[in-house]
Amino acid sequence: MAVPAPAKAARALAATAAALVLLWCVHFRGGLSLSSPTNKGLIFNVHPVLMLIGFIITGSEAIMSYKTLPWSHDTNKMVHLILHAVALFLGSFGVYAAFKFHNESGIDNLYSLHSWVGLGAIILYGLQWVSGFATFFFPGASPTLRRAMLPWHVRAGLVVYVLALVAAELGFLEKLTFLQTAGLGRYSSEALLVNFTALVVLLLGATVVLYVTAPAQNEHTLGYSAVHKS
Amino acid sequence: MAVPAPAKAARALAATAAALVLLWCVHFRGGLSLSSPTNKGLIFNVHPVLMLIGFIITGSEAIMSYKTLPWSHDTNKMVHLILHAVALFLGSFGVYAAFKFHNESGIDNLYSLHSWVGLGAIILYGLQWVSGFATFFFPGASPTLRRAMLPWHVRAGLVVYVLALVAAELGFLEKLTFLQTAGLGRYSSEALLVNFTALVVLLLGATVVLYVTAPAQNEHTLGYSAVHKS
Repeated sequence: MAVPAPAKAARALAATAAALVLLWCVHFRGGLSLSSPTNKGLIFNVHPVLMLIGFIITGSEAIMSYKTLPWSHDTNKMVHLILHAVALFLGSFGVYAAFKFHNESGIDNLYSLHSWVGLGAIILYGLQWVSGFATFFFPGASPTLRRAMLPWHVRAGLVVYVLALVAAELGFLEKLTFLQTAGLGRYSSEALLVNFTALVVLLLGATVVLYVTAPAQNEHTLGYSAVHKS
Repeated sequence: MAVPAPAKAARALAATAAALVLLWCVHFRGGLSLSSPTNKGLIFNVHPVLMLIGFIITGSEAIMSYKTLPWSHDTNKMVHLILHAVALFLGSFGVYAAFKFHNESGIDNLYSLHSWVGLGAIILYGLQWVSGFATFFFPGASPTLRRAMLPWHVRAGLVVYVLALVAAELGFLEKLTFLQTAGLGRYSSEALLVNFTALVVLLLGATVVLYVTAPAQNEHTLGYSAVHKS
């Protein structure tokens, strides 16, 4: 089955965002490492890369999977479930990298709006996964309850996804503001790169949300109903 | 007609956010003024107050109006249209205050992610208003086209609203980071107040979006369909 155009657009935006965040962390910020005795910034760099590629981009694919995958409902559901679990795991690991960087650099934890929103997003993501697992997979609710829960599962999931996007935007702004306070030019190429990456992430999020909430193709319905005035 | 509980919750959150932003700007930041020869901070303070109360809270009411107002479709539509116009006007005035503060303080304009996303949000808000006006009010599209456009008008409107929320969150973080870099305590009462205000705004946004996208009450449908297995 061909991948629909909006999903292709989302993937192009995701690939662009992934390339930009790697360019930032590797080229401008010296690379990534989970442990460094001298350059704690390398530990920090693990954080944006995992949160963007591991959490948001993987989560975006998971959200779109019902509309992009060509397989049976059960197979698509399994992929949806597994991709969200992967996103949750990589996102949690990315949060760990931020704490590790703070602790080894003598920086306070959990004082900023970015940390509050980000931690809230990943906790709600976990709760959403568990409630989705229990309702739709195991043990699974009754068909009636499932049907009633589905629109709430979809909307709650999208709210949590948007919360993760908000956290990402806050993270880009916070890190860049620190760098600019320390002397980085306000219009330097690195500053523009970070802001541009953040815009691409916003576009990715808007594309995913509009795509998965798009009304079903209804040319026929429109064709039949055009004679009725509303 | 009684106001539904989610709309009451949204209004309680909006009132709380409005009180908190006024407490911040008046009590902690010295008040608001559109012109001040000595304390340019007073000009800045106009910005968060207008963006939150004038733009986001008024916009939230406009979005909810179809579900909260007891009048006819046409009257509700007129209120929806006017409230969004008021939000757009007050928001634009709030943006002007930020530029005035920058210009009189010798601060660069439009270098931060907050300014990019915020300006983008208000421009898209204006375009959304004009396209809604032209399609659903004057001259108005054909019934068939209106019906096809409505779900896109709703979803595009919610995406722009969320973009405005993202801009607000970025604004809280940016201003607080500047204050903290200048010496404000990371866990000071002012810092906690700003972060808490930002969280209330996020809750307001989530409440509005979940409320207006809630599926129609369908107890009867469920009652009749419970015998069918899906």
